[in-house]
Amino acid sequence: MTATSLLFSCSMHVGMCHPPKVAATSYACCLQNQPWSPLNSASCGHYGVLENSKLSLRSDEILCRAGALQVESAPSFSVGQKFQLDDVIEAQQFDRETLNAIFEVTRSMENVRNNSSGSQMLKGYLMATLFYEPSTRTRLSFESAMKRLGGEVLTTENAREFSSAAKGETLEDTIRTVEGYSDIIVMRHFESGAARRAAETARIPVINAGDGPGQHPTQALLDVYTIEREIGKLDGIRVGLVGDLANGRTVRSLAYLLAKYQDVKIYFVSPDVVKMKDDIKEYLTLKGVEWEESSDLMEVASKCDVVYQTRIQKERFGEKIDLYEKARGKYIVNQDVLKVMQKHAVVMHPLPRLDEITVDVDGDPRAAYFRQAKNGLYIRMALLKVLLLGW
Amino acid sequence: MTATSLLFSCSMHVGMCHPPKVAATSYACCLQNQPWSPLNSASCGHYGVLENSKLSLRSDEILCRAGALQVESAPSFSVGQKFQLDDVIEAQQFDRETLNAIFEVTRSMENVRNNSSGSQMLKGYLMATLFYEPSTRTRLSFESAMKRLGGEVLTTENAREFSSAAKGETLEDTIRTVEGYSDIIVMRHFESGAARRAAETARIPVINAGDGPGQHPTQALLDVYTIEREIGKLDGIRVGLVGDLANGRTVRSLAYLLAKYQDVKIYFVSPDVVKMKDDIKEYLTLKGVEWEESSDLMEVASKCDVVYQTRIQKERFGEKIDLYEKARGKYIVNQDVLKVMQKHAVVMHPLPRLDEITVDVDGDPRAAYFRQAKNGLYIRMALLKVLLLGW
Amino acid sequence: MTATSLLFSCSMHVGMCHPPKVAATSYACCLQNQPWSPLNSASCGHYGVLENSKLSLRSDEILCRAGALQVESAPSFSVGQKFQLDDVIEAQQFDRETLNAIFEVTRSMENVRNNSSGSQMLKGYLMATLFYEPSTRTRLSFESAMKRLGGEVLTTENAREFSSAAKGETLEDTIRTVEGYSDIIVMRHFESGAARRAAETARIPVINAGDGPGQHPTQALLDVYTIEREIGKLDGIRVGLVGDLANGRTVRSLAYLLAKYQDVKIYFVSPDVVKMKDDIKEYLTLKGVEWEESSDLMEVASKCDVVYQTRIQKERFGEKIDLYEKARGKYIVNQDVLKVMQKHAVVMHPLPRLDEITVDVDGDPRAAYFRQAKNGLYIRMALLKVLLLGW
Repeated sequence: MTATSLLFSCSMHVGMCHPPKVAATSYACCLQNQPWSPLNSASCGHYGVLENSKLSLRSDEILCRAGALQVESAPSFSVGQKFQLDDVIEAQQFDRETLNAIFEVTRSMENVRNNSSGSQMLKGYLMATLFYEPSTRTRLSFESAMKRLGGEVLTTENAREFSSAAKGETLEDTIRTVEGYSDIIVMRHFESGAARRAAETARIPVINAGDGPGQHPTQALLDVYTIEREIGKLDGIRVGLVGDLANGRTVRSLAYLLAKYQDVKIYFVSPDVVKMKDDIKEYLTLKGVEWEESSDLMEVASKCDVVYQTRIQKERFGEKIDLYEKARGKYIVNQDVLKVMQKHAVVMHPLPRLDEITVDVDGDPRAAYFRQAKNGLYIRMALLKVLLLGW
Repeated sequence: MTATSLLFSCSMHVGMCHPPKVAATSYACCLQNQPWSPLNSASCGHYGVLENSKLSLRSDEILCRAGALQVESAPSFSVGQKFQLDDVIEAQQFDRETLNAIFEVTRSMENVRNNSSGSQMLKGYLMATLFYEPSTRTRLSFESAMKRLGGEVLTTENAREFSSAAKGETLEDTIRTVEGYSDIIVMRHFESGAARRAAETARIPVINAGDGPGQHPTQALLDVYTIEREIGKLDGIRVGLVGDLANGRTVRSLAYLLAKYQDVKIYFVSPDVVKMKDDIKEYLTLKGVEWEESSDLMEVASKCDVVYQTRIQKERFGEKIDLYEKARGKYIVNQDVLKVMQKHAVVMHPLPRLDEITVDVDGDPRAAYFRQAKNGLYIRMALLKVLLLGW
Repeated sequence: MTATSLLFSCSMHVGMCHPPKVAATSYACCLQNQPWSPLNSASCGHYGVLENSKLSLRSDEILCRAGALQVESAPSFSVGQKFQLDDVIEAQQFDRETLNAIFEVTRSMENVRNNSSGSQMLKGYLMATLFYEPSTRTRLSFESAMKRLGGEVLTTENAREFSSAAKGETLEDTIRTVEGYSDIIVMRHFESGAARRAAETARIPVINAGDGPGQHPTQALLDVYTIEREIGKLDGIRVGLVGDLANGRTVRSLAYLLAKYQDVKIYFVSPDVVKMKDDIKEYLTLKGVEWEESSDLMEVASKCDVVYQTRIQKERFGEKIDLYEKARGKYIVNQDVLKVMQKHAVVMHPLPRLDEITVDVDGDPRAAYFRQAKNGLYIRMALLKVLLLGW
């Protein structure tokens, strides 16, 4: 919340220039105790500091200032005065209020999607997908989201072999180049923290599409959105996290976000080798979230609103294939589990799934995992809209 | 034709919802003797069963029903009542009537293409190119077709390394995810039969862009279209199939389709090691198509309307390079062949060509192979239009 | 200039058909002393000779002729009567008059870009990026340019593995196929001269995005454009070329272009192992351009309007890592260099940069290299516009 209010005071300071990102730039300045340079206040719309420095006042600045006036009087922006969203870097950055606002926009996106002629909301905007490691599912979801809103996409599926990166260019230099070609950057990187570095450099919004073992915030958002969409509430829910809780980036982020809601109870069901780590347990306790570990999937399934199954990640076991095989078979969601689950409860999974959910579960209305994947599209549409157009 | 009528009765049952694919879903149900679930009848437009299950009536359903009324009164759809096209899986699926209807749409596409401002017919539609093995030529042709009609594209050139596929996700699960992001899937796969599996899973149309040694139906369609476009007829034509007839997927599919026309004669001209296989010969005989094998290219060329040359596929010879070299040089289309060919006849080739057609042939008006490649664009435009908008 | 005038007389001959490329076709004919065939005069707009051969007069030809009349009366085209731009193959092809005209269009593109809703100038046009070696920076820049103007893109990042190329298809055949799917080809190739071969084959415009050690004309254009944009003039400027002058394609092309302006002085500052080659020195002398070699970066920096730094290309040193390390550290642009540089002078770099420019230079208004990269976008927008729509 401090960040939020700080941001707000900044965005007041530099005026209502679009997109919100400019506030982030200013925010960065505040933190680094840098003086306000004329360059910074000039960097308006998606135009960087550097390119304006030697030019006389340019049409985009005029447009921007004109735009500012209109914007200030636009009620729709009043939301934006509550909180400013500049980049999407980690699940923890969102407070409950921001989550609600994002989910509200997300729901509206379901209808946009349903209009086969599509929306032109982001017409003229260019998204660069800068992927330093392949993740076709995530990339397609973001690119579909951008195109469903009438925007365009520049794709880089192997940024790691980005000729210049191979030659030793820094991430910062690459970002400075790519921001010249696009209006928003969606980045997947193999290094934890890379997304933050990119966001600090870029003068356009950056969305973290996963950085190494670190964060995958849009996955966390779509998980929480799906729970609310399926169960109808977030306060007072019972969630069973099943499978690989030690290595699963998803379940960790989900636990962080669920801690923002009231009277939540979380059950951890996992083979001993991949138990949930203490940092999360301590965080939950600190936040007053009730949790317990259990080895009885059936019992947990019968109590929960959500059974969140995950894949045992073979790649994390290295040599120890025997351990993997043992862990893998232990907790399977099948017809027996469905039988004990409540009528209103759902099965979720971040996908891809192997055999930890049997195929005969797919036909059951409570199998929510493909709807969950689809919600990823709506969440990403909403984030693109908010980051590029504001609330 | 049974399938066709079945499809029609089904499509009647579920009403005129768009796109036609919904009929296929119902059809699938019939086959599997599943009861009609409210979910199925609700799955309308490009919206799957799953995602509707927990939602109240959504705008797309209303739109769809409204649309239905208009559609029923639209004469253009009367064609659709004769036959329903839901997926493009194999050359054999098309009867002569369907081929004529497709070619009629294809001809209209040549004019669309000629309007440099392009058509917006498919504006708002998203095509996913899911290629499990690279085929740049085919991919570009499909993507060009979609964009020429104002549609958008999601590209996956290395779906085989699709992170989730690598982790062991089934094709069915991948399809269920991708169908959430797009309106039609164009799939290239290394396994024969993969396209059918995808089509049975998907609730949106699937086009087979080649599955292993199996089928490449759009190539077969463009070949037949080219013959009609160049010669002006299909009944009573004389076609010489030259080169690698044992491994050439193209010539096999072409033979299948030619069998649907009257008084066709086919000549097989190939080195002994790559002769046409018996299954095709038997099929032609069964269908009353006259065929003969010949080792005299000059004589065949002098009689044919179409000399269809193919590349000897080195990759099929493995170690036996000597056999390859021997086969390769045997039948070359050059100026001498042109001299004996009739004025109205044409040379075709699926491309790429090496030296089985000498470069000095390119300048002759009878060299139809680059026009043939171009026709692939029109055929694919037509299929995308019909599958997404109906007839 | 002979070529230019020849082209013009040809374009007069075939009329004002669009796009200009048709003139190139005719030009090719002149050179090869081929008679005017009805086919050639029929090949109009982006329609090739072959595809028209068997067809009666088609709508695009009519359109084209109609268009021609309008065009002839359009004053904007009067520029086009001075010189015809058909392909972009090498820096040397541009005379000073053409450069000025291109830069004029480029300046107008900066405003197009600033309109966030984008331009629809190239709506309905398709650009194929045919890259035989990866160059993400260049590819993204061209694709961004095309999309900023409302055009669409077909991407091939690994044309070298273009299935058909791998099977031994000639570049010419690939071009004939790709030209059927698109309206303009942007090609990157590993072989010097490949771009010219492509342009001679293609009936649509071709832009060379770098062919091996040969040419990278759009880089050269953006460098000269940046100098004029930053310094305000090109005649009478002092330019220091620093770093790897032996292998740097960029500095060689830049030297060629600078020779077209009056009273230019060039300083070469480079480690002995990577000195500027004699051919360029002789060319400059021949053109009356003053040049000198120096080993004193500080002295040169104090005199120049432009310090053009380049990366020492490790990949060119092979085994001799010691030589590389020695050369690499020798001339670094840092705060000390900035101190001696004049207020109006700028530092340029083609990027990527390693440590030959220290990061603390980035904040200085005279650090022009990221603006330079951005200008690449505007130059490419201008070239696409001129090649597809004419002047």
